[in-house]
Amino acid sequence: MLMNPKHPKDSFVVMSELVLPNDTNTLGNLMGGRLMHLMDIAAAIASQKHCNCPVVTASVDNLSFTNPIKLGNLLTIEAKLTRSFKTSMEVYLKVSGEDLYTQYKYMSNEAYMTFVALDPHERPRKVPELIPETDSEKAMYEGALRRRQVRLILSGKMKPEEAGELRALFVKD
Amino acid sequence: MLMNPKHPKDSFVVMSELVLPNDTNTLGNLMGGRLMHLMDIAAAIASQKHCNCPVVTASVDNLSFTNPIKLGNLLTIEAKLTRSFKTSMEVYLKVSGEDLYTQYKYMSNEAYMTFVALDPHERPRKVPELIPETDSEKAMYEGALRRRQVRLILSGKMKPEEAGELRALFVKD
Amino acid sequence: MLMNPKHPKDSFVVMSELVLPNDTNTLGNLMGGRLMHLMDIAAAIASQKHCNCPVVTASVDNLSFTNPIKLGNLLTIEAKLTRSFKTSMEVYLKVSGEDLYTQYKYMSNEAYMTFVALDPHERPRKVPELIPETDSEKAMYEGALRRRQVRLILSGKMKPEEAGELRALFVKD
Amino acid sequence: MLMNPKHPKDSFVVMSELVLPNDTNTLGNLMGGRLMHLMDIAAAIASQKHCNCPVVTASVDNLSFTNPIKLGNLLTIEAKLTRSFKTSMEVYLKVSGEDLYTQYKYMSNEAYMTFVALDPHERPRKVPELIPETDSEKAMYEGALRRRQVRLILSGKMKPEEAGELRALFVKD
Amino acid sequence: MLMNPKHPKDSFVVMSELVLPNDTNTLGNLMGGRLMHLMDIAAAIASQKHCNCPVVTASVDNLSFTNPIKLGNLLTIEAKLTRSFKTSMEVYLKVSGEDLYTQYKYMSNEAYMTFVALDPHERPRKVPELIPETDSEKAMYEGALRRRQVRLILSGKMKPEEAGELRALFVKD
Amino acid sequence: MLMNPKHPKDSFVVMSELVLPNDTNTLGNLMGGRLMHLMDIAAAIASQKHCNCPVVTASVDNLSFTNPIKLGNLLTIEAKLTRSFKTSMEVYLKVSGEDLYTQYKYMSNEAYMTFVALDPHERPRKVPELIPETDSEKAMYEGALRRRQVRLILSGKMKPEEAGELRALFVKD
Repeated sequence: MLMNPKHPKDSFVVMSELVLPNDTNTLGNLMGGRLMHLMDIAAAIASQKHCNCPVVTASVDNLSFTNPIKLGNLLTIEAKLTRSFKTSMEVYLKVSGEDLYTQYKYMSNEAYMTFVALDPHERPRKVPELIPETDSEKAMYEGALRRRQVRLILSGKMKPEEAGELRALFVKD
Repeated sequence: MLMNPKHPKDSFVVMSELVLPNDTNTLGNLMGGRLMHLMDIAAAIASQKHCNCPVVTASVDNLSFTNPIKLGNLLTIEAKLTRSFKTSMEVYLKVSGEDLYTQYKYMSNEAYMTFVALDPHERPRKVPELIPETDSEKAMYEGALRRRQVRLILSGKMKPEEAGELRALFVKD
Repeated sequence: MLMNPKHPKDSFVVMSELVLPNDTNTLGNLMGGRLMHLMDIAAAIASQKHCNCPVVTASVDNLSFTNPIKLGNLLTIEAKLTRSFKTSMEVYLKVSGEDLYTQYKYMSNEAYMTFVALDPHERPRKVPELIPETDSEKAMYEGALRRRQVRLILSGKMKPEEAGELRALFVKD
Repeated sequence: MLMNPKHPKDSFVVMSELVLPNDTNTLGNLMGGRLMHLMDIAAAIASQKHCNCPVVTASVDNLSFTNPIKLGNLLTIEAKLTRSFKTSMEVYLKVSGEDLYTQYKYMSNEAYMTFVALDPHERPRKVPELIPETDSEKAMYEGALRRRQVRLILSGKMKPEEAGELRALFVKD
Repeated sequence: MLMNPKHPKDSFVVMSELVLPNDTNTLGNLMGGRLMHLMDIAAAIASQKHCNCPVVTASVDNLSFTNPIKLGNLLTIEAKLTRSFKTSMEVYLKVSGEDLYTQYKYMSNEAYMTFVALDPHERPRKVPELIPETDSEKAMYEGALRRRQVRLILSGKMKPEEAGELRALFVKD
Repeated sequence: MLMNPKHPKDSFVVMSELVLPNDTNTLGNLMGGRLMHLMDIAAAIASQKHCNCPVVTASVDNLSFTNPIKLGNLLTIEAKLTRSFKTSMEVYLKVSGEDLYTQYKYMSNEAYMTFVALDPHERPRKVPELIPETDSEKAMYEGALRRRQVRLILSGKMKPEEAGELRALFVKD
């Protein structure tokens, strides 16, 4: 099967939600886990737009929550592919909040999630190539290899000394 | 305010859930985001058991999903503290699935999440010291510093060359 | 209080959702009511973006559901303001579905909803003027008066013979 | 297949709900969309009681929300058929609220929704005839033709000049 | 404060629901717990209609589930007061299911629940007297004393030998 | 089919939940029905752990709610088998609440629920024998016969005079 390459914009998706009472903790902040739930759905949409088949979440990179999103605020999640590997895809997510009354917008967090494409027997299958277009897309595409090494090391599937890309960060030869 | 130190077992919590239809994707697998939602609640309970005050999710370490949990299966999440810092706490989570009909148990994933304790003005406040007891608790306690450096580097708050603990992994002097 | 006029693009919002099991009837179609729920939230976001204050749904124009959206498909709702009146705002909504595996996209329905802006005492308050920019925005802006007459007649607040705009549709003088 | 005619009372259904926190906006009012969701379910029950087969929402007539229903109040939705056409059914809905502490009852809104009966292949199928009994049922039965013309015109499926019933409202010959 | 007595019909309430996917177990049967959740809401409405104040569930009598209600079926819960005590009220519930396609109706179960009326300080407060009217209401009113003794004995608040009403069942003198 | 006997500890399950806004009534107390929903799931897990097959709720014994569990508190449900009959199993549940800030723990209620094991045709099937080990398990095992008679009498399936175990409570010969 021959698959045409695709561009990051082909998988771009925007999700907008109002933060409702049951999404918040007793301080009126969107719970981190509820946010991760929505981010996972947004990223699953983006990766399905790229591979046109069922997907399963393979990994979520280190997430750092900067500003909690408040009850009644607008939550916006943007997701698009950064790079496709043989059977997996890395998705970049940008999450922001907005108080619609004061028009105050704030960044909440950024994230990278990885999804695996599945065939009807739930086995990994090939995905189309991704060709970045803009400068920022190209930078994310390049960074994907390094993030992949971090992922493999952190999940114990690669030894640090094999991670050439990453080693350079620690060792200025 | 003087706070008595606590032990990991004081924050230990077990959450058991049946995977219901709305928690799954079209393949009948528990959605990764729904799982993260439940893990966040379990970890929030563990950290509140330690600090006895409101908490907010600060970060989630790299998550790798190995075996998807199936519709109708039992999901078990265990959480307990590994180390407390000045105002934050690291929580270790172990997630497993079980097909109750065939009695087949399987690991799903492990994770580390970090929470910040808040005072009534939603500002970070001090948390009790954590004293590990068992060997595995001591190992997790030790590893917490290294994971913290990974977190700080990955979120851009520390330069790789400052991460002494981590550098050792890459550079065998 | 002086309020700067705004443009339709200032209130534009996109909501993307995956249709989950609990959103569907026994035929695997998104239930009409669940869709209306999501449309109402999208339209409430659009109108809050325009007036920057709490809003309440005042009316929903005749809705006609053409193609049901299927389980697992992507649902996309786009909403933006068409015209603002003294204390109310008309929002246009476009709903489409997409089978992400076959890349088949289809229109589901279009709708007009009206929201009233509220002050802190829950009384109607003034909203900014809306200035349409594109040709289609101008056409929607013009049509808003006619739709308003339909609304007033259908809710018994205006007599048909007073509806000059509308009468022209039925009587070719 | 021969189907016995039915009466409006055969499809009559009452739905009672308490307004819970997650059903409300930040003002403590039941969200319009959540109400439409419940109205759609009530109307689907009424139409399934008439045709005894799966149904799909075809259209919702102009809805006007008069009094918002408050958090903790009792919401009552009554639904029954007004007229059946070849493969579709019109349902009338009456929605009211009640503050159970002060025993204050108030009308919220009225609506007409239309459903299409489906055979196992999801194609429209014939529905039983509806025979109105009371005076108000007969009046609603008569009005159904006029509302149907409004629906067809508003959804662009009929030209205003063809709508004989409706034209009379605007033109006093 | 003088309160006018009320009749069972004043608290009568009907709740109709369609059984949705997330309400069911893997056999497609409404889960017992989900049903109890809905019964509790229906009974809370009935008791609030009687006392016009906040209430809290005090007890649920032995429940026996005869016929499970199936996915897609109509669930109907009817609730009304049987007797009021000083600060508490007993509610009778009748639960039935209906397959709307085959018009097959079946009883699911019956239940008695008890609620306590609360003042603004969350302390028990007096409730109006209940005066039964029909024969079946009178029989339920009489039986309430005996059921109350069963409740008190089963919860360890009364010794069996003090339960005069109940003792008669076991001892034919 | 020969089935090995099991012990109560084999079916022991712990469920921990945070009480969220939508779980509470307007007084901020966990609604009785929502609690019963969670208890039913915990008990279903325990009984599936014993019989390793699908189960259906058969009955719930008299429930008495002592202390309401508050919004934001930790809810803990512990469940384990007390006795197995031919095709049914009795499960004991202990429900407690905890205010994590003040470390105040309180009992909420105890309950007995009965489940029936089902074969693939949804007919009752045999379950393994249960052998109690600790003293408290043995006491519960013994009491199960008496509770079963109460259940049969209360659901009208046994005449009081046939209930030998129970009669002894009322008649001191």
